[in-house]
Amino acid sequence: MNYSGPAIILGYFSGQKMRTVFLFVLPFLFIMQLQAQTHPQLDLMPLPAQVEMGNGELQINPAFSVAITAHDDALLRRAVERFLSHLRGKTGMTALDMSVAKLPPATLVVEVEQPSESVQGAEEDESYSLTVTSAEAHLHSRTALGAMHGLQTFLQLIEATPSGFAVPVVSIEDAPRFPWRGLMIDASRHFMPVDVIERNLDGMEAVKLNVLHWHLSDDQGFRVESKKFPKLQELGSDGLYYTQKQIREVIAFAHDRGIRVVPEFDIPGHTTALLTAYPEFASAPGPFKIERNWGVFNPTLDPTRDATYKFLDALIGEMAGLFPDHYFHIGGDEVNGKEWNGNANIREFKRVHHLATNDDLQAYFNERVERIVTKYGKTMIGWDEILRPNLPKSAVIQSWRGAQSLAEAAKQGHRGILSAGFYLDLVLPASQHYAVDVMPPPAVGLTDEEQKRILGAEACMWAEYVTAENVDSRIWPRMAAIAERFWSPQSVQDIPSMYRRLEVVSRQLDGLGLTHNTSYPIMLRRIAGEDDISNLRTLADVVEPTKGYTRMKTAAVKPTALVPLNRLVDAARPESVTARHFAEMTDAFLANPADANIKSNIEAMLKQWHAAALALSPLEEKSFLMKELAPLSQSLGAVSDAGLQALQHFGEASASAQEWKTQQLSVLDAASQTQAQVTLAIVPAIRKLVEASGGAATASPSK
Amino acid sequence: MNYSGPAIILGYFSGQKMRTVFLFVLPFLFIMQLQAQTHPQLDLMPLPAQVEMGNGELQINPAFSVAITAHDDALLRRAVERFLSHLRGKTGMTALDMSVAKLPPATLVVEVEQPSESVQGAEEDESYSLTVTSAEAHLHSRTALGAMHGLQTFLQLIEATPSGFAVPVVSIEDAPRFPWRGLMIDASRHFMPVDVIERNLDGMEAVKLNVLHWHLSDDQGFRVESKKFPKLQELGSDGLYYTQKQIREVIAFAHDRGIRVVPEFDIPGHTTALLTAYPEFASAPGPFKIERNWGVFNPTLDPTRDATYKFLDALIGEMAGLFPDHYFHIGGDEVNGKEWNGNANIREFKRVHHLATNDDLQAYFNERVERIVTKYGKTMIGWDEILRPNLPKSAVIQSWRGAQSLAEAAKQGHRGILSAGFYLDLVLPASQHYAVDVMPPPAVGLTDEEQKRILGAEACMWAEYVTAENVDSRIWPRMAAIAERFWSPQSVQDIPSMYRRLEVVSRQLDGLGLTHNTSYPIMLRRIAGEDDISNLRTLADVVEPTKGYTRMKTAAVKPTALVPLNRLVDAARPESVTARHFAEMTDAFLANPADANIKSNIEAMLKQWHAAALALSPLEEKSFLMKELAPLSQSLGAVSDAGLQALQHFGEASASAQEWKTQQLSVLDAASQTQAQVTLAIVPAIRKLVEASGGAATASPSK
Repeated sequence: MNYSGPAIILGYFSGQKMRTVFLFVLPFLFIMQLQAQTHPQLDLMPLPAQVEMGNGELQINPAFSVAITAHDDALLRRAVERFLSHLRGKTGMTALDMSVAKLPPATLVVEVEQPSESVQGAEEDESYSLTVTSAEAHLHSRTALGAMHGLQTFLQLIEATPSGFAVPVVSIEDAPRFPWRGLMIDASRHFMPVDVIERNLDGMEAVKLNVLHWHLSDDQGFRVESKKFPKLQELGSDGLYYTQKQIREVIAFAHDRGIRVVPEFDIPGHTTALLTAYPEFASAPGPFKIERNWGVFNPTLDPTRDATYKFLDALIGEMAGLFPDHYFHIGGDEVNGKEWNGNANIREFKRVHHLATNDDLQAYFNERVERIVTKYGKTMIGWDEILRPNLPKSAVIQSWRGAQSLAEAAKQGHRGILSAGFYLDLVLPASQHYAVDVMPPPAVGLTDEEQKRILGAEACMWAEYVTAENVDSRIWPRMAAIAERFWSPQSVQDIPSMYRRLEVVSRQLDGLGLTHNTSYPIMLRRIAGEDDISNLRTLADVVEPTKGYTRMKTAAVKPTALVPLNRLVDAARPESVTARHFAEMTDAFLANPADANIKSNIEAMLKQWHAAALALSPLEEKSFLMKELAPLSQSLGAVSDAGLQALQHFGEASASAQEWKTQQLSVLDAASQTQAQVTLAIVPAIRKLVEASGGAATASPSK
Repeated sequence: MNYSGPAIILGYFSGQKMRTVFLFVLPFLFIMQLQAQTHPQLDLMPLPAQVEMGNGELQINPAFSVAITAHDDALLRRAVERFLSHLRGKTGMTALDMSVAKLPPATLVVEVEQPSESVQGAEEDESYSLTVTSAEAHLHSRTALGAMHGLQTFLQLIEATPSGFAVPVVSIEDAPRFPWRGLMIDASRHFMPVDVIERNLDGMEAVKLNVLHWHLSDDQGFRVESKKFPKLQELGSDGLYYTQKQIREVIAFAHDRGIRVVPEFDIPGHTTALLTAYPEFASAPGPFKIERNWGVFNPTLDPTRDATYKFLDALIGEMAGLFPDHYFHIGGDEVNGKEWNGNANIREFKRVHHLATNDDLQAYFNERVERIVTKYGKTMIGWDEILRPNLPKSAVIQSWRGAQSLAEAAKQGHRGILSAGFYLDLVLPASQHYAVDVMPPPAVGLTDEEQKRILGAEACMWAEYVTAENVDSRIWPRMAAIAERFWSPQSVQDIPSMYRRLEVVSRQLDGLGLTHNTSYPIMLRRIAGEDDISNLRTLADVVEPTKGYTRMKTAAVKPTALVPLNRLVDAARPESVTARHFAEMTDAFLANPADANIKSNIEAMLKQWHAAALALSPLEEKSFLMKELAPLSQSLGAVSDAGLQALQHFGEASASAQEWKTQQLSVLDAASQTQAQVTLAIVPAIRKLVEASGGAATASPSK
């Protein structure tokens, strides 16, 4: 590791609202454990544990070469080949001259110590070190997984410079904070074809996630071909399922990217689709029909009959053979107990076996299922509900309930995964997820050993309101910020830095084929019913879908699996970038109202919104999907008008200011309401403008 | 076929510059052979042979159903399933309720008379009739191919209306003008991965093309796995080739879409890659190396040795088994003869066999190859060069030379395909290709029988200057206009109508996953070296790559297979939509200079260009890919300035007007030059403004 000149170390430590920047200029140095430092210009996400910047850069040209000098296996070789393909994508270079060799010299030397596991372990060493000089780059890791992560970091370091593509001279020591960093995709409520899964695996690799938790069965569909129980796919999937060949392909695709695939077959509840195929295992008489609604439903496996366990043994055995991962998820959530209460045999069984409650009965069920799962060489995972005193300690708890529940599991000796706080389907801002720590807070009082049981976390993409078309936009780019929370040191907390880098990563993900950006104009054109979407897009850019669980409550038409997801609420981004930028500009203006430049930028945005609102009005009659947007575009017109008035009369004293302000605030209050299940995300910033304005009772300046 | 009310027939017949619109209102009617008529509002491409509009519309809702009432086979069934999937894509509806049944009632009744051929024939009946009433749609055809075309027409008819998605009441009788409507993709010069081929097959299906001509071998690469001659892919492909499994998948994918796959293995020239693997069949001593340059090269098969034919027999036999199509393309173009002249054995062979010229020798070669191709049950195709007196009449001539050459082939008894005039790699405007007729002009004097030998045409996508990243943008949307030339009646000639519909089709192709639009910002961001590409895009939107074969001649760095295609010339659209719209606006303004609205729109565009040019200037130092654009953005600034001056002083008399005009025209002359291998496509329209302006010698209004 040679630096040709003095190294510049830039580190910033951030917490709450306070940020301090340290700048050292040192002749030569080695720093241990300086966490969360980074060059502010490096667009890395997740941020590495440790970064030291040097001077100069390593040129990337078509003669780029890689040498694999230590352990060399097919997995690593494919990773390097894919790296070269991404490098070509980044630079537009042909890869014809790029070569992979055993020996240096090479532009990038990859040195991996150990052979790869045939089945990726849950706690393999994923650390790597990457040293870039102006002559070459050196990537060192214990495992191929570490090398894969280092290769992704290298790709993120590439930038266009005046003299060509280059990577800055830098030294990175990196390792994940948590070994389990996952994304759960629900392929049951809306089926997600293989290409959706595969492109999301590409995205996951780019941000160093390592677990795809695949939610494969639920009330709305059983999505895997079973050779032993073919009615599962024939009657339980509407024809929308993965063949076993496809499953194997996806697993191989994921394995190549350092990602484990953990299947979930949700039992004993969430089994309407399964019981549609095999009603004989239900707790109530059938027949059942695949569920079209969203919610918690009655159909539940009968936990009192041996036939049920015989069926589960065969099914779990088949699926345990299909999915090589060491872990197997049995769901276990949201059993409402109605069928159990209504079944005399089950009531009698509880009495005979001294199972006082349905929770006790489910615990009994889980213990028997755990023995099956263990028999097939797997470790069982389940949602919070499976946590009961007699549950074997090897079982892993995935918490949708929160830190307290997770901590409880750890205290009882279970390993745990946090998902509360990382529900992507709630369409919350990235910053909100980013603020959730995976480790329960100190107040909970976990010992060191208990803390070690917190394996990591998973974001969840429940699929009530997503299809193959818009699911990427619900996952990305926010997932990248969450991935940073899962990987980077706890001290990495700078939200503006996160958002700045998130925009870069979002574009990077475009290049991988993710459709979070590309599906947007396609959906808007469908809504507009015509090709010119400029005004609709102006509106769409400043709205956000209603958050949390309000969509169901505020729906004019009850949402079901049969209701098209083709409205603005489905196309709108979870987090409006335009609104965030506008809010930043507004804050800057309020901090310095004399800045004419900022003022004119704000004014231009407000005018654009006002003009779009006017222009949209005649279009609302053209297409039925535009019709519901009429109140919304009226609101856009009204709030941009309020903003323009506030800006025009900013700082003016006026006798009627208070009256004007009261009026405008009531306009803003009305415009804050959810309309067509979206909200205008620019209202809070405009409210600040109005509140700070001297105001005036004059006519609107823009009419 | 019942109409609930009077039908309105709208037809327009267009030729050269003349357009006449006929409007009939008739109570009920049936019109035979009224070609090229269409409702101006229907965004169909290619235009059907005959369209009758009715009143009202057929609603499309989630309960949409299809009944297959007559012949039902797996091919048709898959076509209907994919149709439903596209329908879902168009509408955003879930397809869960959409069903396929054997019996009416259904929203769409599909009636096909005959079972499908297992290998699609070159002259199958592709006609269909589609009748839409407000109650149901009825699609009738002889073959599954006709039904596939009708389903695509149905998809293009779908529109958003105030009451929901709908298809207008209409009656369409349609059949292609030519049975052979192809796209040739060169996968040799730059390799095109399977997903590129498959998404282009999706695009081809949408515009009713039926032949993928796959150019699989050339000097720069042999792209198919051979089991018999594995060195072909091992030494002749840089590792970039299709496995036989992939080839079979692509063929099945194409077959499902009514598209034949005709392979081309170019011999005896264009064989450097082949001879790199097997130099023993060359006409000169090896070894050879895969060619990195573009052009015509020396390595050529030795046509005088039996070993060569033994090799070709085995290779053609293997490939004839892999590719089921009845036709087999042997290339045959551009043999420069240098190796033949330099080889004493070959000279002696020619003497002994009375082969006076190298053309005679190649004719001898072709006759022997033709016997091999025929032995394996295939009909041979080759480029113009193979046309020689002794060539068997069954051989098909593909003409890159033009109508005269094609007509000559037809007169000699050969069937022929036109490609001259349809070279997509020349980045010409769609209108230019659209004006080329497939049938040689009457002056050539083909008899009816000779005319029947003109099977159709193929557009050619040669791959010197395209990669997987930008190839779609060279093919689409222009290919759709060419597809209309291949399919629709000769009388369909209205260029404004073509361009209007082309923009709609271009968006439709987005929805199929083609990347002609989505790759654009990705490439621009790479050039900019940053995410904000607004100004670069403004520039890029008004330039076009240098046309024809000038790119090679004007290159600062000699283009080869190793030179990255990552510059503006690679990202820029073949045809600037912005420039076309600007030219239309300019013409409208010059026709009516009093129209203040048009004037202000023109002014806004000019100002935007002027501002972008100023804003780009500092960015040129940031990235090396921006640097070469400095003269171009200066030109953009200068020409938009000239346009603004012309506009400002339009109609003013001025003593110094002539001097001003001379100055401005010299600015425009300079800006007309190709810079960085692109041209500013807005210059001609600005020139018109300057020439029509009174002009003024005052200072620039925009400085």
